Amino acid sequence: MPVNPRAPIEVTAYNSVPPVARGFVKDMRVRWALEEIGLPYRVRLVGGVFGEKSAEHLADQPFGQVPVYKEDRLTLFESGAILMYIGEKDERLLPQNSSGRARAIAWMIAALNSVEPTTQMLFVVGFATQGQEWSDSAKAAVRPFAEGRLASLSHALGDREWLEGQFTIGDLVMVDVLRSVSEPELVAAHPNLAAYVGRGTARPAFERAMAAHLADLVETV
Amino acid sequence: MPVNPRAPIEVTAYNSVPPVARGFVKDMRVRWALEEIGLPYRVRLVGGVFGEKSAEHLADQPFGQVPVYKEDRLTLFESGAILMYIGEKDERLLPQNSSGRARAIAWMIAALNSVEPTTQMLFVVGFATQGQEWSDSAKAAVRPFAEGRLASLSHALGDREWLEGQFTIGDLVMVDVLRSVSEPELVAAHPNLAAYVGRGTARPAFERAMAAHLADLVETV
Repeated sequence: MPVNPRAPIEVTAYNSVPPVARGFVKDMRVRWALEEIGLPYRVRLVGGVFGEKSAEHLADQPFGQVPVYKEDRLTLFESGAILMYIGEKDERLLPQNSSGRARAIAWMIAALNSVEPTTQMLFVVGFATQGQEWSDSAKAAVRPFAEGRLASLSHALGDREWLEGQFTIGDLVMVDVLRSVSEPELVAAHPNLAAYVGRGTARPAFERAMAAHLADLVETV
Repeated sequence: MPVNPRAPIEVTAYNSVPPVARGFVKDMRVRWALEEIGLPYRVRLVGGVFGEKSAEHLADQPFGQVPVYKEDRLTLFESGAILMYIGEKDERLLPQNSSGRARAIAWMIAALNSVEPTTQMLFVVGFATQGQEWSDSAKAAVRPFAEGRLASLSHALGDREWLEGQFTIGDLVMVDVLRSVSEPELVAAHPNLAAYVGRGTARPAFERAMAAHLADLVETV
């Protein structure tokens, strides 16, 4: 069981988030990766997502978010960067040959910069305009950007099990982005993407990470 | 001069984009990095941004975008992943020690996943809702997300020249994200960010990359 208070690796997490965010905070990505390779970590809770951020936490994480990853004298932020760092420890997450490695990173960056911004925009526009009579129209205006990227991704995945030859941090982040889409029907419209998410979230490492993530959300907002 | 038709590295670019996108297409990020280290590349034009994408191009770039990077038998997409790959060739772009490298990557991912999605959302919401009487209200609803991230970034940068001890791919992408903000006054509100963008875009490698980028935009949309 990777969660171990005496582990040299520290990962920060919130102790409270709104119900809609339970299971979807980005420490999940790092916990999942560590579970995949059985690398122990300890958790440091930094309060709730809406709480005031300490100067110490802001020095570690410029945007006041989680996770922060600490190991020896390294302090690292951005889950994508943390996954790269963890991935380099074990080829079950990131191939060690140059081209396999580069392709896995390409898919992780695609998840972070080509897919997630469009699906997150759909959520944020809905959230930020709720109560306005034009809120649905605003969501309708930005939804095609998410739909287009999901269609391209579905085409690229085809009938393969993972995006490249083996499960990598590219799949880990892509599955996490897809399972977080605020309108799940956009993913369900592509049976191969829905099955891909199902394969990812059925991995024992994902399930253990989720259990640990939820166990740390001890307070309600 | 890195642009060389016989170079072993190939970078794709569009030959036409709308006026608003001139100077801002993502092949700029790759050209800039290659100019920083004097690595020659050849350009393959794949048509206009609005043109039909060939099956060959879609096989190289799942979202039908540019740039694609080819070297030997490697085909790579996502400018962030390409920069990682190029960065590993030269410590003027990416430190070779483990923690310096990880920190530079963290800033690059911050640019791609924490800053750009908020500033791009502001542009996309404006673009996708133009002509609606509530378009300005929709932009106003999402603008605080961009403003918040820029304020955090300004605080993190402080009075340093670059985000870490030396110029890295983290600065390259962050400067490129900041100079592309569709409402420049959001960046100008933070004099240290404005000066940082000025330092980045005054680099001779940036200027050479921009000249080459514009020279390839031979048709008007």
